[in-house]
Formats: sequence, C-alpha cells, structure tokens
Amino acid sequence: MPGDVDLAVIIVPAEQVLEVIDQCARKGVIGVIVISAGFGEAGTEGIERQRLLREKALAYGMRVIGPNCLGIMNTDAEVNLNAAMAGLMPPRGSVSISSHSGALGIALLDYVKSNNLGIAHFASIGNRIDISSNDLLEFWEDDDNTKVILLYLETFGNPRRFSRLARRLTRKKPIIAVKAGRSEVGGRAATSHTGALAGSDIAVDALFRQAGVIRVNTIEEMFNVAKNLAHQPLPKGPRLAILTNAGGPGVLAADAAINYGLSVPPLSEETRRRLAQFLPKEASLVNPVDMIASATGEQFGKALSIILEDSAIDAAIVINIPVRPYQEVASGIQKEMAGYEGEKPVLACFMMSGTNTIEIRTAPDRLVPVYMFPEDAVQAFFQSYTYSRYRTLKAGTVPIFPEAAEAKARKYLEPSAVLKNGGWLPPETALGLLKEYGIPAVETKTAGSAEEAAKVALEIGFPVVMKLRSTTITHKTDLHGVLLGLQSEDEVIQGYKEMKTRLEAAGQGKAMEGVILQPLVKGGEEIILGMSLDPVFGPLVMVGLGGIQVELMKDVAFSIHPLTDIDPDYMFSQLKGLPLLNGWRGSPPRDLDALREVLLRFSALIEDLPEIAAVEINPLMVFDRGKGTMAADARILFKSGTAPM
Amino acid sequence: MPGDVDLAVIIVPAEQVLEVIDQCARKGVIGVIVISAGFGEAGTEGIERQRLLREKALAYGMRVIGPNCLGIMNTDAEVNLNAAMAGLMPPRGSVSISSHSGALGIALLDYVKSNNLGIAHFASIGNRIDISSNDLLEFWEDDDNTKVILLYLETFGNPRRFSRLARRLTRKKPIIAVKAGRSEVGGRAATSHTGALAGSDIAVDALFRQAGVIRVNTIEEMFNVAKNLAHQPLPKGPRLAILTNAGGPGVLAADAAINYGLSVPPLSEETRRRLAQFLPKEASLVNPVDMIASATGEQFGKALSIILEDSAIDAAIVINIPVRPYQEVASGIQKEMAGYEGEKPVLACFMMSGTNTIEIRTAPDRLVPVYMFPEDAVQAFFQSYTYSRYRTLKAGTVPIFPEAAEAKARKYLEPSAVLKNGGWLPPETALGLLKEYGIPAVETKTAGSAEEAAKVALEIGFPVVMKLRSTTITHKTDLHGVLLGLQSEDEVIQGYKEMKTRLEAAGQGKAMEGVILQPLVKGGEEIILGMSLDPVFGPLVMVGLGGIQVELMKDVAFSIHPLTDIDPDYMFSQLKGLPLLNGWRGSPPRDLDALREVLLRFSALIEDLPEIAAVEINPLMVFDRGKGTMAADARILFKSGTAPM
Repeated sequence: MPGDVDLAVIIVPAEQVLEVIDQCARKGVIGVIVISAGFGEAGTEGIERQRLLREKALAYGMRVIGPNCLGIMNTDAEVNLNAAMAGLMPPRGSVSISSHSGALGIALLDYVKSNNLGIAHFASIGNRIDISSNDLLEFWEDDDNTKVILLYLETFGNPRRFSRLARRLTRKKPIIAVKAGRSEVGGRAATSHTGALAGSDIAVDALFRQAGVIRVNTIEEMFNVAKNLAHQPLPKGPRLAILTNAGGPGVLAADAAINYGLSVPPLSEETRRRLAQFLPKEASLVNPVDMIASATGEQFGKALSIILEDSAIDAAIVINIPVRPYQEVASGIQKEMAGYEGEKPVLACFMMSGTNTIEIRTAPDRLVPVYMFPEDAVQAFFQSYTYSRYRTLKAGTVPIFPEAAEAKARKYLEPSAVLKNGGWLPPETALGLLKEYGIPAVETKTAGSAEEAAKVALEIGFPVVMKLRSTTITHKTDLHGVLLGLQSEDEVIQGYKEMKTRLEAAGQGKAMEGVILQPLVKGGEEIILGMSLDPVFGPLVMVGLGGIQVELMKDVAFSIHPLTDIDPDYMFSQLKGLPLLNGWRGSPPRDLDALREVLLRFSALIEDLPEIAAVEINPLMVFDRGKGTMAADARILFKSGTAPM
Repeated sequence: MPGDVDLAVIIVPAEQVLEVIDQCARKGVIGVIVISAGFGEAGTEGIERQRLLREKALAYGMRVIGPNCLGIMNTDAEVNLNAAMAGLMPPRGSVSISSHSGALGIALLDYVKSNNLGIAHFASIGNRIDISSNDLLEFWEDDDNTKVILLYLETFGNPRRFSRLARRLTRKKPIIAVKAGRSEVGGRAATSHTGALAGSDIAVDALFRQAGVIRVNTIEEMFNVAKNLAHQPLPKGPRLAILTNAGGPGVLAADAAINYGLSVPPLSEETRRRLAQFLPKEASLVNPVDMIASATGEQFGKALSIILEDSAIDAAIVINIPVRPYQEVASGIQKEMAGYEGEKPVLACFMMSGTNTIEIRTAPDRLVPVYMFPEDAVQAFFQSYTYSRYRTLKAGTVPIFPEAAEAKARKYLEPSAVLKNGGWLPPETALGLLKEYGIPAVETKTAGSAEEAAKVALEIGFPVVMKLRSTTITHKTDLHGVLLGLQSEDEVIQGYKEMKTRLEAAGQGKAMEGVILQPLVKGGEEIILGMSLDPVFGPLVMVGLGGIQVELMKDVAFSIHPLTDIDPDYMFSQLKGLPLLNGWRGSPPRDLDALREVLLRFSALIEDLPEIAAVEINPLMVFDRGKGTMAADARILFKSGTAPM
C-alpha cells in the first residue's frame, strides 16, 4: 500500500490477526481496530491469543480498539470515518457512544437514528485490551462535538478511575449509562450484614450517584433521556406544566410527575387569563391545561408560548392525541415558538406510532424531543432535573483528620490475635482501633471465667453488660449471648455459667472464647455502621438503623469509599427511619452531627488500613444532640493472607 | 328515514341533542350514541342538560352510550360497525376496549394496529349516563370474539359491581387495566375532567389484585401485555429460556427476569448437546443461549424448537439484534416453528425501530409478539405469569361466623357515648364490641380520678397498665399517656397525677377524660389492624406490624372489604416484618392462625355495622402459636350523622 497509513481495521480470521499486526508494524501503523472475534471471549486458546496480541501491540507502541468489537465511527467533518461493521451510519450530532457489546452497537445506532439524534463518535470497544470506556471519557471531556455521552457497560475495568473521570466530566456534560448484569451474584461470601445487603448492583448505584452519572435501567430509557438532554436546556427546577388536547393523557402525565416527586403547580391568574382569551370555555386552565380535542396547531403553539412565560413553572410537556393531522400540531408549535431558546425545556408526547417522523425545531439547536407515551416524557424530564440538581451541588471533598493515627492504630493489629481468630479482630481490639480514629467506643474488658468476669465487672462498676466473646457466632442474641444490666458479682457469675451451659447444650461450647464486659450504655438510638469489600468497586460503606430495621426492613444506605463531606447527609436522607434520629414522638433529636463525623472518620480508617475486608459496628449508639456517639460492639475482618505483621 | 333504525349516532351541538332524542323516540330507536360534548363535563348548564338527557332516555326506554364520547366499533362479521369519530379502524381481532377518555381512544386504536393486534369491540363511553364499563364487562364475559379486555379507567362508578364481575370474568379471560389519577394532582385533573370522584390508589391496587385484574402503569405496558395474552398461551411456570444472537441483550433480559422474581434456569444436558450439534463452538449454551452474531434465521428457528422441548423451562424469549436482515430471522423462526401450538409461550425482541412490521406466525392463532426492548418482553411475560398463577388459585369465599352477633354488638353503640365523643367510641366500649365478634380484648375499666383509678387497679390485680382516656389525642405515648406495669395503688395514684399535670402543662388538660386500666399483657408481637372508609371503594382493611414499623417503615398491607378466606395470607405475605411472626432469632413463632381468624372476624364486624367509618386496633397482641391474640387498645369512629340509635 502506497503512502502512510494512520489506521488499520483488521477483519481477518482470528488465527491471522497476529501476523497482520506484524505487517502493520512494518508499515508504521500506530492505530489498529481489531474487529475479529476469537480472543478473550473464546476459551483457553482465545485467551492466550489475546495475551499475545496485547503484548505485541504494546511492544510496537500501537493503540488498539477491540478485539471482538464492531469498530468506531467519527462524524467530525475533518475525519468523517465509518470503521464499523454496521449497516447504517446515523447523521452527525452531539451524542457519543461507548458500547461494551458489539452486536448491541447495531441496535444503538438504529435507535440513535429513530430518535432524531445524531452522533459525534461511536465506539464498540469489545474485549478492550487497550482502549477502555475510561479512555473514551477522558477524550470526550474536552471534545466540543460531544454534548451527551451514552455508555453501555458490562463490567468495570477500573472503577476508581471511572469515578474520578466521571465526577469531573459530569460537571460539564451528562453521562447516561446502562449497566448490564444487575442480577449477577458477586460470588462473595456474605461475611456480615453489610456484605449480605450490598450486592454489586448497590455498588454501581452508589458509584453512579456519587459521580453524577445518570443511571437508566433500559436502553429505551437511555434514548428517552438522551434526546431531551441533547436538544433542550437543563431545567432550573421541578415545576412542570402539562399542556394537552385530551384529559386522560394529562392525568397520566401528572400521575407520573407526582410519582417522581416533581410538582405540577397551578398556573398564575395572569397566564390563565391569557389562555382564556383564545381557548374554548370548556378548556381546563389550571394545570394540566386541557385545551380539549378541538385544539388547533396554532392554539398549541400560542398556549405553549404563554405557559413558558409563567414564573410558576420550570418546564413544559405538550401532549397531543392526533385528533387532527399531527403535522398541523407539529408545525403550529414550531411556528409559534420559532426562535425560542429560553431556559425552560420543552418536551412533547404525540400519542401515535411513528413519532420518529415528527420534527419540531424552535431554533437550530433546539429540537423538541417527541415521545410516544406521556410517562416516557416525564421520566426523561425527571432524569434531566435530577442531573441538573447534581450540577448545582458543590463537589464533595474527602476530609482529613489530622489526629487519626495509622501508626497508633496498627499496634492493635497483633498478628497472633488476628490469625488465631480466623481473620476477625476480637471486639475489644476492634473497639480500641476505632478509638484511634476518634470514634468513641465503650470501655471493654475480657474475662475467661465466671470468677474473672465478676472481678472485672466490679472494676468497671455496676450495672454491666456481659456478652459472649466469639468470633464464629455472629448473632449472639439468638443464643442468649447478651446479658444487659447485670447488677452484682453474683449475677455475673450466674449469667456466665448459664451462658456456658446453654452453648454447650446447643453443641456450641467451643465457640465461647470467654466474655466481654462493658458498662451499661443507656439511651440513644442503635445504628449499624458497616463496610464490605466489593471485588470490583472496593470498600462499600453502609449506615442504617439497627436491629430489625436493618435485618428485616433493609433500611440502609450505601456509599462507595472514600466518603466526601456531602455523602453522609445523602445517606441519611435515604433512610426511612431518619425521623427516629431527628426527634420522634417526643424523643429528643439525636446527634446527627456526631454520626456524620463518625462516618467520615470510619472512611479515613478504611483508607489507612487497606488490609481490612469488612467492618461491622453494631450497635453504634447515637445519643441526644450534643452528646455524641458510642460504639458498643464491633467486628473487623482482615483479608486472607494480609493479616498485618 | 325509511325502515327501522336500530342505532342513532348523535353528533349535533349539545343544545340540539335533547330534541334529536325526541325524534329518535318517535322513530322507535332504542339504541343511541351521543358523541356530542357539552354535558356533565361542561359546568352547571351542561350538568343540567345531562340530567335531562338521562331522564328522557330512561323514560323512552333507550340505551345510551355517552354523551361526550368517541363512539363504538364492532368488528363481528354480522355487525361490522364503525360508529366512532376516529380516523382509523383496526382489523378484526380478539381485543375489546373500553375507554373513559374519548380522545385517548384515538391513540388506543392506533396502538392496537401498530402492535399487530385487532379488535372485537371498542367503546369510548364518555360520561356514561347509562352504559358503563361494568355493562361492557358483563357483555364481554360470554362474548366469544373477545379474548382479552383492555380498560382505561378514570373513575369507578360502582366498584362493588366491578369487583363481582371482574372476579368472575378473570377466571375465563384476562382484563388489563390502566387506572388514571394515581396522584392527588392527577386525581384532581381526573375529577375536573369527568366530574366524578377519584379513588384512592391503594384501594385500586387492592381491588384489582383481589379480582385478578392485571394492573399496568402505562398505556405502553397495556399493549405490551395485551399482544402476548392475545396470541400466546398462559405459562405454566416462571422458568424462562432466553435465546439471543448477542450477549448484552441476553444479560439485560436475564437481569429483568431475576428482578421480577422469575427464573432463568440452566438448560438440560440433552438440550445443550442438541444445540451444540449445529451452533458454533463460541456459542454459550447454558441460559441465556447466545448463538453469537453469526446466527442465521434457520439456527434461530431450530434452537428455539429444541429449547421449547426442555422440561426445565416454561417459556422462551427470542432476542435478535438485526445483524442480518430481520426478515431472515423472522421467517426462519416461522418456518422452523410452523404448526407450533404447544403450551409454552414464545415472545420475541427485535432490537430495531419498526418492530410493528414484523410478523412471526407459528399457527393461525399463534402470533409471536415482538418487542423493541428485552425488558418489555420480560415484563409482558411476568404479567402473564402472575395472571396465570392467579387463575390456579381457588376463588376465595367470605366466611360466616354464626356466633358473631350484630344485635349484641349494637348494645355497645349507645348514642350518648358516641355523640359526646365526636363520633369516636371510647376504647372500653370499642374493645367490648370487638369481643362480641369473637375478637379477644383485654379487660378494660375506666376511672375518673386518681383515687378511683387506684381502687379499680386493685380489683384488676397488679401489675396494671394505665392509659390516658381521650378521644382527641391519637398518639398517647407522645404525651406520656401510657404507663405500663404499675405495681401498687400508690404508683397508680402518682401516675395519674403526673399524667394530669403534664397534660395541663402542655395545654391539653381538657383532653383528659380520666384513664382506662387494664391488666398488663405480657409477650406477643404488636400488630396494628385498621379499617378506613374510602369514599368510592368502601372499607379498606389494613394489617401491619405496630410501632415504628407502621409509622415510619409503612410496612402494612391492604385488602378491600369483604375479606375472603384467602386474603389474610396474601396480606401477611406482603409484610417485610412477617419473619417476626414466624419465629425470629430464637423467638417462638406467633399465632398466625388466630391472627388470620381475627382479620376475617374484623371483616364480618365491618359488614354488620355499616355505620362505622374507621377502626384502629393498636396494639393487637399476637401471642405464641396456639395462644391466640388480644386487642389491647381500639378506637372506632362512626360516620357523621349515622351514630346508632
């Protein structure tokens, strides 16, 4: 081949790919797309072939997309490249797409076109031996052609990098993502409540929420949201006006809006007066505005213009049942709204098949997205509003606690203790470790016999709490392993003996490693605080109300470590039981400020000690406002083979 | 007009309708459709006009559809009637539609056609001064042309009749319903739209569930479900096979299935062996079966035939990304599956725009429904499975309790007591009333002073519970109005005085109507049992865990009165807190049998005493299995103006 070659697209059978790579190298090609399948996805032989491909490309200094992919498209006028194995190329536009699935890419390109969208870039990145979604994100961050990013993800290669990039990027442009594999079981042992409650999908949810990524559940929703964000401004608020020529769909839209927590406020007197001037007397003018079936295209357009001037609303959804030819309504709106580039988004629902043929353009860059069903329009608006609100939040920062002392904490990690206990730190050590990070914990002592327990209890002062000390029994209360408020040495001795007898009767005598003794902590709300390690996403932090609230009601909230200063409040807001902390039925409000700080300190501890695989503080007592918190029990698990030296 | 006239379709202006009705009567017309608007939906004048229309039609013995409607269609070959103001008439088919909204009817007819469906009957029934959805249901019950019924409802005229009809009908054919007006704003719009009352959404859920009606949230979902039920058999179970030519969409479908509680089990060795014979070695054969992008139409068809023979699955979803021309895949499936009328439903997802042009027919009545997105296919299957399971349940019956004595109960309803208390029966009377229906209640006495309280407590025997007696204060515990386990006359006297002082300090001194005293009930789980009167649906019965479980976690379940013998178990199954009743963490299991009976007796009480507007039994203690239940506090409110004589 004469001249220089920038890009090679390789579509030969898998067995010949390596040879072609060598040929490319000789020609000085530095960009390669390997469309051929038969690599990492195809058994032992394929995996080996992929390893060799990666090694070769790396050695030659090549950048590779694929293998096992559909290829890429770039509609930039200076490039105008279609290097994808797809039957159609959508028009130029502002959407860029990354798809882990090749074949799905074909469908995505079809949906781009049928949703009146256009693409800037499309990349099906297959087995991603080199270029990943993260690389694309980095590129798209400063790419002026890209306004909206769509990701179809099957796995995360490097979630920390994704998080860092996405946090920065979503401040400028929206990322809409479908993550497949929600139902996959992580294959991770449920080592604690936190582990059992935190599926991988919860981690994805937390990751996306913390990074401002718009998570959609389906490809359909992805495009519903995209066609709004690509052509309409972000709303300033949640107040939606609904304009319709039929009552029923107006009600369906209002139902959906309220269900999403949006508002459908009454329009102002002035707006109603102006609408009444040209709408029939049977029309309903409050909101939804029902112009009734006789509405003309001109009335649609005029009513919409007037409604958008009402300061009581932030956006409008126009619903049309095609009583008249839909073209009349579309062009009526377009004509009356010509030149509109205001700050309020407009969405439309034409209840008919074939909505993709409808085009309503109020300005060169303002195409009104048209949906077939009112609920889809409302959902798209809701997602854009949620994203808009995220953009107004200050970016969180990870706080530093100068006094939190890794070195001091490490003294608690004596290998003998950890190893003897199968990786679990005993509660008295775990509580001591928490204290080093400024997380208050109850004074905790151990005893190995009934008599010793009585002696220790006397030192602590009555009333005491005596708990079974066992690293193998998780739910101590099930086995009557927690005795509250013991008042005397006799009660301690008797309690110890009964506990032992009961365990022996249950065949669990060996699980008893003595007891721990603590002063009785009175008052406060029982909170559970946990961390479990997701194999892909790293540490997940959980907070919730203790007892049956966590165990049956699953009333818990998650964030991915590290927590920024804005994460705890978000987590609190997700708890149905939050009123219990804010002063419930005459109880005083609890110390949320202290709980917030404990969460952040907890995250600092996790940062410093990466050997930790799981933590559960249960209960953490949260006292009345100004009175702080107190961890009463805690377990810490170390990664196998990482027990500290 | 010469000859007889069966039906008049009136489309004149509203002012002339009454005159035309007279003309019709003179001609002997007995069937009338009034399409004209300007009646009940159009202010005072319209309401009066509607009243006159109704009177006239009644007097003439006419049957009327409308006014303010779109009209009707009937595709029966012997009738072949299009009397609707709509631009298109779908082909003949097995779906019958009733729509409260006229304009929406136009959209519904469009969706019928674009979903490859046909109609038996279509009726837009507008203001329904005569013919209602219920009349249509009664007609469709025995109509052989109608296989699937679609309802768009804005209000319920007679929910009891609806429930009775639907319970019977859903045993034979599915009813799929959208109920608009879920939210308050939506409800407000529905009210102004139709001039009738909007129902509470929880009641609608319960009504539909108890009657076997398939509730869908959107019109889109309605058609997704309908096109499956119209052309495919009901599944025998939840085990789904997924056959695809691309991994990604297969994962999305599996995610959706697991999320709905369906299963995606591995296929048998035998099936996998048969598939391996003609699929490439890169194909994944477990489930989802990924034939990879090279799959031909013939391979689709053959693989599907083989999979359907596997006894491990109950249904199949075929997913096609149009790598090849979609026609090849559609005809490949049709050819290989020709004549298939087996018991397992087959659904398809072609991920492309324009799915409505795809027709895959395996037998004259077996059209494979085609969806654009995998999640829609899974949702349609899930709804058909849920309905299929309902059909296998025995129909519930309302039990009779011979000893429940209305006459004896009425002696508790002394007008003086009720009226003095603003319609609320005092707790001691309410508990007495429950006892007459065989619902055990704690012995309860009253006292008006500290000294009297001490005397009564002595009679009851210590320890006693003393509660504030007040019909105006709902949450007694907020005001420290419940004292548990008082041990002596002194404690009672002191407790009484403190309660009084505290109330006076809170400015609520007058709310105290003395106290009630009860023996202390020990053990058991606190349950709340309630009834509230929905203005449209009548009494709604609620059960849930007491305390914060009901107040914060909203862990409650509802049924519409009257309860049949199968309703309590359904309600229990809806409670997240159910494990607390079934033996939780070493606690003994509670007496669910007794609780079930209490719910049914409670329903009998509501049936006998229609004057009751609300009941709250809180707490109802449920003891260990075999030990029964005990109501410890109860309030009963009477409808205003209906206080018993």
